[in-house]
Amino acid sequence: MGLARRLENLVSPTPADIDIANSVQPLPIGIIAQDLGLKPEDIHFYGPYKAKVLLSARERLKDVQDGYYIVVGGITPTPLGEGKSTTTVGLCQAIGAFLGKKVVTALRQPSQGPTFGIKGGAAGGGYSQVIPMDEFNLHMTGDIHAITAANNLTAAAIDARIFHEATQSDKALLNRLCPADKEGNRKFAPVMLKRLKKLGITKTNPAELNPEETKAFVRLDFDKDQITWKRVVDVNDRFLRKITVGQGPEEKGMTRETGYDIAVASEIMAVLALTTSLADMRERLGNMVLGTSKAGHAITADDLGIGGALTVLMKEAINPTLMQTLEGTPVLVHAGPFANIAHGNSSIVADQIALKAVGPGGFVVTEAGFGADIGLEKFMNIKCRYSGLKPHCAVIVATIRALKMHGGGPDVSPGKPLDHAYKAENVELVRAGCSNLVKHIQNTKAYNVNVVVAVNVFVTDTEAEIAVVRQAALEAGAYDAVACTHHSHGGKGAVELAIAVKKACEEQSGDLKFLYPLNLSVREKIEAIAKSYGAAGIELSSDAEQQIETLTKQGFGDLPICIAKTQYSFSHIPSAKGAPTGFILPIREIKASVGAGFIYPIIGTMSTMPGLPTRPAYYEIDIDIKTGKVVGLS
Amino acid sequence: MGLARRLENLVSPTPADIDIANSVQPLPIGIIAQDLGLKPEDIHFYGPYKAKVLLSARERLKDVQDGYYIVVGGITPTPLGEGKSTTTVGLCQAIGAFLGKKVVTALRQPSQGPTFGIKGGAAGGGYSQVIPMDEFNLHMTGDIHAITAANNLTAAAIDARIFHEATQSDKALLNRLCPADKEGNRKFAPVMLKRLKKLGITKTNPAELNPEETKAFVRLDFDKDQITWKRVVDVNDRFLRKITVGQGPEEKGMTRETGYDIAVASEIMAVLALTTSLADMRERLGNMVLGTSKAGHAITADDLGIGGALTVLMKEAINPTLMQTLEGTPVLVHAGPFANIAHGNSSIVADQIALKAVGPGGFVVTEAGFGADIGLEKFMNIKCRYSGLKPHCAVIVATIRALKMHGGGPDVSPGKPLDHAYKAENVELVRAGCSNLVKHIQNTKAYNVNVVVAVNVFVTDTEAEIAVVRQAALEAGAYDAVACTHHSHGGKGAVELAIAVKKACEEQSGDLKFLYPLNLSVREKIEAIAKSYGAAGIELSSDAEQQIETLTKQGFGDLPICIAKTQYSFSHIPSAKGAPTGFILPIREIKASVGAGFIYPIIGTMSTMPGLPTRPAYYEIDIDIKTGKVVGLS
Repeated sequence: MGLARRLENLVSPTPADIDIANSVQPLPIGIIAQDLGLKPEDIHFYGPYKAKVLLSARERLKDVQDGYYIVVGGITPTPLGEGKSTTTVGLCQAIGAFLGKKVVTALRQPSQGPTFGIKGGAAGGGYSQVIPMDEFNLHMTGDIHAITAANNLTAAAIDARIFHEATQSDKALLNRLCPADKEGNRKFAPVMLKRLKKLGITKTNPAELNPEETKAFVRLDFDKDQITWKRVVDVNDRFLRKITVGQGPEEKGMTRETGYDIAVASEIMAVLALTTSLADMRERLGNMVLGTSKAGHAITADDLGIGGALTVLMKEAINPTLMQTLEGTPVLVHAGPFANIAHGNSSIVADQIALKAVGPGGFVVTEAGFGADIGLEKFMNIKCRYSGLKPHCAVIVATIRALKMHGGGPDVSPGKPLDHAYKAENVELVRAGCSNLVKHIQNTKAYNVNVVVAVNVFVTDTEAEIAVVRQAALEAGAYDAVACTHHSHGGKGAVELAIAVKKACEEQSGDLKFLYPLNLSVREKIEAIAKSYGAAGIELSSDAEQQIETLTKQGFGDLPICIAKTQYSFSHIPSAKGAPTGFILPIREIKASVGAGFIYPIIGTMSTMPGLPTRPAYYEIDIDIKTGKVVGLS
Repeated sequence: MGLARRLENLVSPTPADIDIANSVQPLPIGIIAQDLGLKPEDIHFYGPYKAKVLLSARERLKDVQDGYYIVVGGITPTPLGEGKSTTTVGLCQAIGAFLGKKVVTALRQPSQGPTFGIKGGAAGGGYSQVIPMDEFNLHMTGDIHAITAANNLTAAAIDARIFHEATQSDKALLNRLCPADKEGNRKFAPVMLKRLKKLGITKTNPAELNPEETKAFVRLDFDKDQITWKRVVDVNDRFLRKITVGQGPEEKGMTRETGYDIAVASEIMAVLALTTSLADMRERLGNMVLGTSKAGHAITADDLGIGGALTVLMKEAINPTLMQTLEGTPVLVHAGPFANIAHGNSSIVADQIALKAVGPGGFVVTEAGFGADIGLEKFMNIKCRYSGLKPHCAVIVATIRALKMHGGGPDVSPGKPLDHAYKAENVELVRAGCSNLVKHIQNTKAYNVNVVVAVNVFVTDTEAEIAVVRQAALEAGAYDAVACTHHSHGGKGAVELAIAVKKACEEQSGDLKFLYPLNLSVREKIEAIAKSYGAAGIELSSDAEQQIETLTKQGFGDLPICIAKTQYSFSHIPSAKGAPTGFILPIREIKASVGAGFIYPIIGTMSTMPGLPTRPAYYEIDIDIKTGKVVGLS
């Protein structure tokens, strides 16, 4: 990598993230692209430091052999986070600026909501960050805005359709849905043919539909209590969690209870992350199920005639955004699906483009959300299944702090001072907590992937503590276990990790072994995952059993499974640390993101709309009028 | 203009807009920028055919003399529209490609909502269009998305603040609003100092506030019935017109009735259109009034601590977007405020940059929404007052169709076939309808601006009809009146208009005469505008009288006036065509956009959220998977 440049004059103690980010002048993104082997026709600029990389680049490079593919997961985290993004960025800075290899970091785009709510950037931290940090955290290249627009157009279309169906006869609806042209002829819009086919109607002239066919065609007949589609906004707006719409006089009393999710929880985000081409995205968007008819049929976006419009709204968003790290290595930012109700991984297309761009001997490092039980499992069984890719190495990030917690250390929570146990050496706590790390290593190795453990070192960690972790990791079958200090030293702090990862990749062979085949029943698939957590079995609520039956009947039973559960334990009980066993995983509810392509069983309650605290982060955020620079962002 | 290129091989009858738009390969936007005299450091690319022009370009060119400034208004329109945007684009194509002069078209960004609702593009039409048409109509460079994000962050912040104030003591609020640092010290965030100053508190240490001061500082004390801020979405979502929020269990029963507007109705859009610099935008956003306290005080965005964050969200949106016409002339697209509850003109900064870029002898043509009674009046008395600019010429667009309607022709409405009267020659109807045109000419001339009438000719219009219009216009004092056919012929069809406009500009002199000085009372200012409509006077509802008193007391009485009324008549009665006189204008309600900088009296009811029809335009919209091109957009 000709451009990668080692950071110099590092300051200790490590300054605030925004100060570090502002201290490095980013390179023009065109240069970053060129260095990566992209051609001018492969990219669209979005200002000086961001560019969309077009899917056509993947096509242009299709005959190039893929580079090494590395996924970064973590042990079961504390609520403070264990530095997975930071490690991902630091590792790449090391590979690029110190090993001199081609490398791309693949990251998720963060939601804007938390940026203004409770502090905490998503661009890495310390000397391992993506820059410009404000552009990474806000708007970026508009992908989340596009998702919001598409999601909310769909929502408006649902309510408007219910309104029009309630106020018009079948004939009037048909006449309006298929308006006469100047010669008085009516025809079906192309998207209507899909619905007609589903209904078993082969006629191509609206005038020829008999009354039954007309009724079947024009009435989606939404069951208002079975509408699963919600509106979204990329803001922490807790008062929208549950609302009643349609209270205006023109809406004639057709009120309905519904609610908002934060935008990144939209199924369209999950579609973006899992799609593999424009044609595939068109198909998935059209197949999204919005609700159920009174007769129990799934109603899709294409039934509503809107799949094409959604694709048009998403046609730029399908291209990943190229940015850079502090050390000038390229980053592809794309998609940021939830890690509970969705699969929590950045996009397939970003990884595919990156693997071609770095080519043989190059490296692509992609991050999986939450702990490895959730993020890595979904990476393997959902993302890799759809992409056909196989990782050469999985990095599992651990901290001494989190291991102590798993070993029985006191409660760790944000805003509360960290207990003394976490600041002084305590080898026994660490040793006890390694059960959690060991379980993650074993689970990950079962996919037939080499595992490298990265201990993200804090200043209070001791050599003895780190040695314990290394020993436990190697005994559990890790390929290697390495301490790293990229937060305070940038790429230099992750060189040893980079070398270990490189070796692990070079020695990897064999196929990916999925945890379950798709043709198992939904119940069996859930059980397979639950057992990987250490559960003795699962318990389905009667709702969940009913929902499995419905989904299976509707033809969605062969989708992969995306478990929505707490990230704070292998089990469903956040306080069960370490590696609990023998528990029964209780499945409360089963939902599906049919367009994106997975079924998601829900364990407990998942919040899909955060709130704002009394003093939100926005109080500090402003613009320096003289320089135009953002201040107060963290 | 070296780049402007005349269209060739025009097809008759004129093909569909999207087909024409797709038939012309746009020039790389960097070339358009360069030809306009912009330097690489003046622009940020957004893909190959769009670029943001930075405000710094205006600064760099500050010593260049402005070009000629032309505003395009229209007569009172039919519901079908009279082709004002098309004429604006066609005129510019003629100036650039046929007169060989430097020219910039300044247009508003359209809302995405109607694009998917009822058909009708906003990029001009026929052979006078802005391209790429899909990028113009959808997302563009994300300005409306930024407005939506900023608007909705504010809304979430209001409800969250009400919640936190209701559930915490004064002391707890103070402790959370001013959290202690590691040393246990508390301090005010910079934005809090503005509120303290307003409250007359000079202390700078939170610990020193006495209980009364603490209460005053921490409690915004919103009156829930007096919150004027609404959420917005850029979708035609009628079911959001009136909603109840806060129905989730965590919100503890603190429900509230509120509603959504379409995004372009946000005050932040009006701020964007009227701001003159980043510092000015910061000030205006912070000054936006969100509601009233129980004690009757105006509560601003900066009281809520959010003005800085809003500015950060809007920092890219303040830069206008450069695009191009079919004939390769540059277009600056920026802001699209409502023309009733806001002033309906594109941005001041776009016009300012354009005037410097074209320089002396060049032309900037900007469009004012609705009929001239509304759009042009607000252009002069609000936009020009804030910008300090003066137009050299006003173009008033008329159609034979609309004049016939004003002369007593039958009803014209969308979706209904046009009456025969509009397709065959009827000189008398036209002559009678010229009263409307004459009144607009007289009103516009009163600003001390030359008026050129553009008759936007349809194939069914006759020479005799056009001659009548021309005669009436000249008798009313128009500088010239010209027929043009730019819809079917591009710039070639507007050459005569371009020549007339050029002469009118060259012969213009003297200062702009406003319709009213700002120091009149609110009532007197409204009366002055009402009289320009032909009204005998105004009638204020008791609510309106009360609201004037409150606004005046709050110190907002010296703002300019932005009348919200129907565009279909000079009066408040849409069916009163021609030039009605003697009516009394009834003012139902008085509101203010204090941050943007105007008071808006409301006459009748203004819809700020459209709906979707039974068959929305989205049924036709899709992507051609093979080419990636958008189809079905109109």
